[in-house]
Amino acid sequence: MATTTNGTDQPQGTSDTDTPHWRQLALKHRQHQLSLIPPEWQLKDIPSEAEARNAIPIVEQHLSKEELEITALSQSLLSLQRAIRAKQYTAVQITKAFCHRAALLQQTSLCLTEIFFDSALTTAKRQDEHYASTGQLLGPLHGIPISIKDNQDIKDVDSTLGWVGLISKPAKSDSPAVEVIRQAGGILYCKTNIPQSMMMSDSYNHVYGQSVNSLNRNLISGGSSGGEAALVRGGGSVGGIGTDIGGSVRIPATLQGLYGLSPSTGRVGNRESTRRDKYVVPPVAGPLARDIDTLDAFVDVYLGQQPWLSDPGVLPIPWRKDIVESYSTTGRKLKIGYMTDDGVVRCQPPCVRAVDNTISLLQSGGHEVVDWNPIAQKHHGRAYELWLKAVLADGGSRFQALCDLVPGGEPLIPGMLVGKPKDKLDTDGRMALYDEIYEFTRMYMGLWKDAGLDALIMPVTQYTGLRPKMWVEADMYVGYTSLCNLLNWTGLTVPAITVDRELDKPSEEWMAYQGRSFSDRYNHKGYAENFEEFVGMPVGVQIVTGRLEEERAVGIARVLERLRTH
Amino acid sequence: MATTTNGTDQPQGTSDTDTPHWRQLALKHRQHQLSLIPPEWQLKDIPSEAEARNAIPIVEQHLSKEELEITALSQSLLSLQRAIRAKQYTAVQITKAFCHRAALLQQTSLCLTEIFFDSALTTAKRQDEHYASTGQLLGPLHGIPISIKDNQDIKDVDSTLGWVGLISKPAKSDSPAVEVIRQAGGILYCKTNIPQSMMMSDSYNHVYGQSVNSLNRNLISGGSSGGEAALVRGGGSVGGIGTDIGGSVRIPATLQGLYGLSPSTGRVGNRESTRRDKYVVPPVAGPLARDIDTLDAFVDVYLGQQPWLSDPGVLPIPWRKDIVESYSTTGRKLKIGYMTDDGVVRCQPPCVRAVDNTISLLQSGGHEVVDWNPIAQKHHGRAYELWLKAVLADGGSRFQALCDLVPGGEPLIPGMLVGKPKDKLDTDGRMALYDEIYEFTRMYMGLWKDAGLDALIMPVTQYTGLRPKMWVEADMYVGYTSLCNLLNWTGLTVPAITVDRELDKPSEEWMAYQGRSFSDRYNHKGYAENFEEFVGMPVGVQIVTGRLEEERAVGIARVLERLRTH
Repeated sequence: MATTTNGTDQPQGTSDTDTPHWRQLALKHRQHQLSLIPPEWQLKDIPSEAEARNAIPIVEQHLSKEELEITALSQSLLSLQRAIRAKQYTAVQITKAFCHRAALLQQTSLCLTEIFFDSALTTAKRQDEHYASTGQLLGPLHGIPISIKDNQDIKDVDSTLGWVGLISKPAKSDSPAVEVIRQAGGILYCKTNIPQSMMMSDSYNHVYGQSVNSLNRNLISGGSSGGEAALVRGGGSVGGIGTDIGGSVRIPATLQGLYGLSPSTGRVGNRESTRRDKYVVPPVAGPLARDIDTLDAFVDVYLGQQPWLSDPGVLPIPWRKDIVESYSTTGRKLKIGYMTDDGVVRCQPPCVRAVDNTISLLQSGGHEVVDWNPIAQKHHGRAYELWLKAVLADGGSRFQALCDLVPGGEPLIPGMLVGKPKDKLDTDGRMALYDEIYEFTRMYMGLWKDAGLDALIMPVTQYTGLRPKMWVEADMYVGYTSLCNLLNWTGLTVPAITVDRELDKPSEEWMAYQGRSFSDRYNHKGYAENFEEFVGMPVGVQIVTGRLEEERAVGIARVLERLRTH
Repeated sequence: MATTTNGTDQPQGTSDTDTPHWRQLALKHRQHQLSLIPPEWQLKDIPSEAEARNAIPIVEQHLSKEELEITALSQSLLSLQRAIRAKQYTAVQITKAFCHRAALLQQTSLCLTEIFFDSALTTAKRQDEHYASTGQLLGPLHGIPISIKDNQDIKDVDSTLGWVGLISKPAKSDSPAVEVIRQAGGILYCKTNIPQSMMMSDSYNHVYGQSVNSLNRNLISGGSSGGEAALVRGGGSVGGIGTDIGGSVRIPATLQGLYGLSPSTGRVGNRESTRRDKYVVPPVAGPLARDIDTLDAFVDVYLGQQPWLSDPGVLPIPWRKDIVESYSTTGRKLKIGYMTDDGVVRCQPPCVRAVDNTISLLQSGGHEVVDWNPIAQKHHGRAYELWLKAVLADGGSRFQALCDLVPGGEPLIPGMLVGKPKDKLDTDGRMALYDEIYEFTRMYMGLWKDAGLDALIMPVTQYTGLRPKMWVEADMYVGYTSLCNLLNWTGLTVPAITVDRELDKPSEEWMAYQGRSFSDRYNHKGYAENFEEFVGMPVGVQIVTGRLEEERAVGIARVLERLRTH
C-alpha cells in the first residue's frame, strides 16, 4: 500500500507490548476489512502517490471491459435505470462491477469503512430472479448499488463512526434513510470513510485510516463525507448519501468535482437531525453525485417513497419538479447575489475565480447579479461565531465518552472542531444561543427578502486543496459552508472550474498579503507552498437558497449547466 | 360584577397593609384594564351566574341592531370579507361593533387581557380612507378584527401571560404571527385570557382573574386559550389564534362548541415553537372559529402571506386547497379509526356519545371505520407519560422565576402541570427522552401506516365541563389531547353534539364504577354532581391526522359537516 493511505494511521508497533490496545483493535478490524475484499480483487502492487497521483487510472486498469462500461464516470442514475429496465445488464452484473471498483478504490484511497459485498450480491441475485419471473422491477433503484456514509445504521453492520470503542457493535436496525433506499430497491454494499468525530473536513480516523482524494492522492478527500466523495468521484458508486453539519457534504464535493446537496432539516432522513437536545445546529443528510441528473433523480426517487410516513424526521414535502422546472426550463430571469470574501478568511484565487466565472456566465445569460460582499462582510463572521458556539456546546463530552469506550482509552485527534469543557453550555446558555440564532436568522431573512434574491453564489471553502493533516494544523475556518447550517438553508455545491497553472498562480499581491489571523495566514502560505498539487483539480461554488428551497437550488444548477454547455 | 368572574381572584385586602404587594399590582392593572373600556360600554349591573348562566343574551341586549348584525354568531370570516368588499360596512363600523361586543363579554366572562380599542379604531379609519381613495383593500383581512391569545407579542402592549411580575413591560416588537395578521390587513384590538403558566385548562391567573365559559358562566372556558374561546363563542371575535402544547386550543374549543386546530409545528407562526431547548415538546399556534369556513379561510389567508419568508418558525408549505378538496368534494371513501377509552381515564357519557355519533354518521356516508381502542389502550397511556415527562422537564424553574419577578413573590397556583425540582432533566436526561419520544413516534406511525387510516376520531377531553378550580383539584389528565403534541400531529376539534338530559344522564353503571385512579374517580364524581350544569352544553370530537396533515383534517371536518347537515 502507498504511504499516505497506510502511513501514520497504520498501527506502528511491532509487537503486542509496544502497541497500545486501541491500535491493536484497529489493526484487527482493518485486517478483517481487507478480508472482506475477495482475494482476486486484492491488489498486489499499488503505485505510490509520487508515481500515480490520480487513483482512477490505477483502478481502471484492473477492471474488465464490461465493468468499465457499467461503472464509467459518465454513467448516471438515469442511464443505470435504463440499462436495468432494458435488461442490458442484470442487477448482479451491475452490483459486481461497482463492488469491484469500490474494492479497488478502497485500496488506493481508503474510502470505505464497512464492506458487505456478499449480502449485496445476494440481494442482486434475488432481484434478478424477481424481474425475470414477474417482469416487475422492485422499485426505482432496483439493481442499483447505493453507497452511504458510515454514520447511517445498517442492520447487523458496524456503525463505528471511526471510533475504536464502537468496533463489533453492529446496528440493531436500519436507519430511516437506509430503510427507504431498500424500499426503493437500492442495493447497499459498503459504507464510506469519515473523520474521527466527523468534526473536521479531513476524513481520517484510527479505525479505517486516512481517506484521500481520488483525483490526487496527495490531497485530502475532504470531509466529513470524504470517503463517500472519493468513492463517487472514482466511479465506485453512482451516488450516495453524506451528512452535513458545517460543510461535510459540500466540502468533499467541491474538492472532488462533485455535486453535493446540504438540504434543510427534514428533507432527507437523518436520525441525528431529530436529536434536538444533542445539537443546537443539527446535521442534515444529503446526496453526492457526479452529475445534476443523478442528484435530482436521487432525491426524487427518495421522496417518491413517501419516507415521511415512517420517518418522523422527514417532512411530507414531495420533490417539487414544477419548482425545478420553473427555473430550468422557462428561461426566467434570475436575481443572484455573489460574494467571494466574508472578511474573516480570504479565499484562494481559484475559489474566487470559480465564483467570478459562474457570475459571468449568469450575466451572459441575461441574469441580474448583486454584490453581496458588503452584507457577507458585515454578518457572516457573526454567523460563524454562533455556529461555532453551537457545535462546541457539549464541551466535547460526547467525544470524550467515545474515546473512553476502549479500555485504556483512544486518543482524541487534536485540532478538530470539538468542544472543550470551557465551551460547554448549560440549559440556559443553550436557550440563549437558540434565541441569538433565531434573531440572526430573522435578520438575515429580512435582508434576503428585501434584496429579492433567487440565490447566492459563494465559495464552498477558502482553500483549493489540503495535504493530509493540514486541516487540523490550520485552526480551520468553515464559515463559508456553516452559514447554511446555521440558517437551516439549502447549500448545493456545483463544479465550476479547474485550477489553472497560469490563471491561478499565486500573484505578487497574494504573496505579499499579511493575513488577518493565523488561519488566514495558513491558508495563504499553504496555497503558495502546494500550488503544483492543485493544478488541474476541480473547484466548485455553492448555490445557496432559503429554507427547504432544494428544488430552487437544483433548478439554478440546471440553468448553470446549460449556460456552461451551450 | 358576578361572583365567579371577580370572586376569589379579586384582590381581597381592604387596605394596602392587608394586601400583598402582588395583589396590589394586579388590582391596579385590573383597574387600568377597565379604564380602557369606554364608560358608555361599561355595565352598571351584571346579572349573577345564578340569574343568567349564558353570557350571550346579556351581551346582546346592550348592542345596537347594526352591531348585532355585524357580530352575529352566524357571521363568518367570508361573510365579513364580502361585507367589507361590498362596502356594506366600513372597517370602523365592524371594528367598533367587535370592540363593543368584546368589552361586554369581558364584563360577563373575563375573557380579555390587554385592550387597545383606540389603536384598532385608528387603523380601521386609515383603512377606510385608503379603500375610499384607492378602491384597493389593504389585504384579505382588511377591516376585520382578529383576536389573539395573550402570549403573542404585540408591539407596545404588555405580554404578561398572567404574571404580575410582567405587568408594564410592553413587547418591543410584534410576534411573527402578529406581523402576518397586520400584513394581511387584520385589525388587532385585544388579547385574550389564559391560565397562570398556561399549563392548565382553566384560564385564571392573578392579573386578569377567572375567565368563564360564555355559554355557561358557572363553568370554565377551558384553557390555556380559554379567553380566546370565550370571546369567539360569545361573538366578540369572528376567530383568533390560540396556542396548544397539550390541548390548549382544542379543549376550550370543545367546551364552547368551536372548531379549534392544533397543527404540527411550523404551520402557524409561534415564537415559542422555535425555542428548541426550552421545550422537549414544543407548543404550536392554531386558530379557533365558530365554523369550518372561517377556520379554513383563516389558515389560507395566513399562509397566503408567505409567512415563511420572514418567520424562521414557519415551513414554506402553502395551504393546499387541493388536499382539502380531495376529501370535501370528491366523495372518496375514508377509513377512519375511532376510540373512546384510552384505558387511563374513562370519558364521561357525552364525550363517548360524541364519538359514537360521529362514527355512525361516517358509516351512514359509506365510510369504513376501525376500532382503535385496543391500540389506544396499549399505547396512549405511555404517550401521556412521555409527554408529562417532557413538559415537566425544566423542574418548574421557569415559572418560579416568573413568580420571583415581583418583590415579595407571586404565589404559584397549585395543581397546574408545572414541574417540581425532582422532575428536572439534565441534558443527558433530555436527550434520552427525545430518543424515547422518537421511538414511540416511529412505532405509532408504523401502526397507523399498517392500518391505512385517513384519520382517527377521538374524544377531546374526558369531561364535559368543570366548575372553576375543579381542574387543579382533579390531578387532571390531558392524555386525550397531548397525544397529538407528543407525535407532532394535527388535532382538529369539531363540534359534535350537545349534552342531553336523558341520553347522557349518569347511568347506574356509571354511578357504580369504582375508577382506576384519583383522577378517574374525580371525573366520575364530578360528572354526577354537576350534571345539570352540563345539559345543553356542546361536546366536540377530535379529528386526528398525521404530521402536517392539517388540510386532511379540515377536509374531513367538511365531510362531517356535510353529513350532519344533509
